[in-house]
Amino acid sequence: MTPNIYTCRRSLYAIPRGTAGVLPTLPMAEPMLKPPEHQVAGHRTLDGKLGPLVDGRGLFYKPLQGDGRGKDEVTFYSVFSSHPAVPPRILSFFPRFHGTHVLPSSDGSGPRPHLALEDLVAGFRFPSLIDIKIGARTWPLGSSDDYFRKCIARDRESTTASLGFRISGVQIQDPRAAAGFWRPSKSDVRVYLIPDTRRVLRQFVSMNPPSDGAKPDCGLASAVYGGPDGVLAQLRELKEWFEEQTLLHFYSASVLVVYEKDAVAGQQPEGSSGVRLKLVDFAHVEEGNGVIDHNFFGGLCSLIKFISDVINDPEGDGWKSNRVQLSCENGNMEKNGNLMP
Amino acid sequence: MTPNIYTCRRSLYAIPRGTAGVLPTLPMAEPMLKPPEHQVAGHRTLDGKLGPLVDGRGLFYKPLQGDGRGKDEVTFYSVFSSHPAVPPRILSFFPRFHGTHVLPSSDGSGPRPHLALEDLVAGFRFPSLIDIKIGARTWPLGSSDDYFRKCIARDRESTTASLGFRISGVQIQDPRAAAGFWRPSKSDVRVYLIPDTRRVLRQFVSMNPPSDGAKPDCGLASAVYGGPDGVLAQLRELKEWFEEQTLLHFYSASVLVVYEKDAVAGQQPEGSSGVRLKLVDFAHVEEGNGVIDHNFFGGLCSLIKFISDVINDPEGDGWKSNRVQLSCENGNMEKNGNLMP
Repeated sequence: MTPNIYTCRRSLYAIPRGTAGVLPTLPMAEPMLKPPEHQVAGHRTLDGKLGPLVDGRGLFYKPLQGDGRGKDEVTFYSVFSSHPAVPPRILSFFPRFHGTHVLPSSDGSGPRPHLALEDLVAGFRFPSLIDIKIGARTWPLGSSDDYFRKCIARDRESTTASLGFRISGVQIQDPRAAAGFWRPSKSDVRVYLIPDTRRVLRQFVSMNPPSDGAKPDCGLASAVYGGPDGVLAQLRELKEWFEEQTLLHFYSASVLVVYEKDAVAGQQPEGSSGVRLKLVDFAHVEEGNGVIDHNFFGGLCSLIKFISDVINDPEGDGWKSNRVQLSCENGNMEKNGNLMP
Repeated sequence: MTPNIYTCRRSLYAIPRGTAGVLPTLPMAEPMLKPPEHQVAGHRTLDGKLGPLVDGRGLFYKPLQGDGRGKDEVTFYSVFSSHPAVPPRILSFFPRFHGTHVLPSSDGSGPRPHLALEDLVAGFRFPSLIDIKIGARTWPLGSSDDYFRKCIARDRESTTASLGFRISGVQIQDPRAAAGFWRPSKSDVRVYLIPDTRRVLRQFVSMNPPSDGAKPDCGLASAVYGGPDGVLAQLRELKEWFEEQTLLHFYSASVLVVYEKDAVAGQQPEGSSGVRLKLVDFAHVEEGNGVIDHNFFGGLCSLIKFISDVINDPEGDGWKSNRVQLSCENGNMEKNGNLMP
């Protein structure tokens, strides 16, 4: 067994009590586990570190963190996936939940419970994907001071506070790149500001690859972002629900978009775009207690505006023509310069 | 001249250059200035302190703070009130701007520029009014560290962070109260949590006065919050604009609602409710630069949900029947209690 290939030990499966009835039965044959090929955000299974595994048959296993976050995410999936107030269409925006399974850890530290979820890139050969963390605040209100300080520093330096969302990771199919994908490093993505975010959202739906250095052509914008089952339509469905739902508040959760350039480029006008949009990462979900998730909702609507801009404004700078200028930069505000006695 | 009565000195008026053409001419007679009777939030003109003045003829004068905030608010009004991209209907949600005027300060410190605005309670005899500061974040991103720390502490301890809005002040007509109004002190309002906020939003539209200690009857909810020109309809108009507008971001701005119980209670079914809703306080407005004001927008939508709840749920606890429970309080989550090895 190589360090990154794991055998699934069915005998150690731990299905949360009370949910077994709704969980599908797992296949009997022992699947081979390996690190996911197309992960762009979160803990990565590299160089023997602890990270997620996939079984190549449609399941994604996320190891439970020992600090309670893993347990919280399991609780979320257990409760949410069977809550009668969640419409089925909304449930379809979440990865399907397959219980928890005890598997050998990817870091060689022995057996550990893993959250078993739908593998969102299963079936894609060359998936382009982007992970966008939603919300202007990534910390729940009851956070420890340490966690609050860590998060708010990151929220202020990234686009989280300014845009209400930030890109956490991206990979774009690019035949010229070594691995077949353009995939900026975590440290590059970490310092994305608003203009970088605009650019990457345009590159994500362009025919010309990011590595050619040219302006993104946005050639796939209407196919991926537009259309009846494109990103914008799906985000608007989510928006409608978030405008009303007071069940849960989602902190640090992401929208994950996956599509395949070839499939979209060769798509028939009437056909489905095959664009997959899911919400992921629920380690910081809180009870809503009758209050809408205004933080997630505001960020989602900000993202919707940015995505609409890519479709409606092919040149990408239309917003500049319609501004209010409050600063004195060009001297036209000096009329207010000497009002105090 | 008593300490709180001021004579308007026309000779010292300072109309911002470039805006004089759009400003109405002031009446020639010298109006008498006095502190506003119905102010519930902001700096109050009490005991000779620096605060706003009204002329009893429809104008409200706000002294310019010396720290730049006053100047920033003047800049906002000058630019916004004549910006071609602002629809007239949206402009009607803002107090009309009448330039800046140098007037004697209410604290006796001599002449000082004042922002001249429409007096929003002019024409009301016994106005009930509420000031609701919108947004989960009250500080602009470029704030000094001191200002940021001060604001975020306040945002976390009030309902600003949790609800996306907080009540800043309220007065409700109450014949039993000494002054004819129930008006909680600033220090009382400062510590309002979510249940207090729910209660006050219900008391604000109840026939039974807050001082009787009974459960608010919400007898005026449909007349004040509902209807074609009620609070909800007006908030939804604003919401539509904020969902798209990328001109400006409003931090620490408030929604102010004013109405008169007698007028609303005696209202004909077809008549106008006479409910006035305006946005106020623009000392912390920033350029939007193509990004929607997701912070204000999210808070506005959270308020809309709370106001809808008052109309749709006369008992006030309907939200409790539709909850997701993630905690272990009643033991039904213990299934997730022992997942770690």
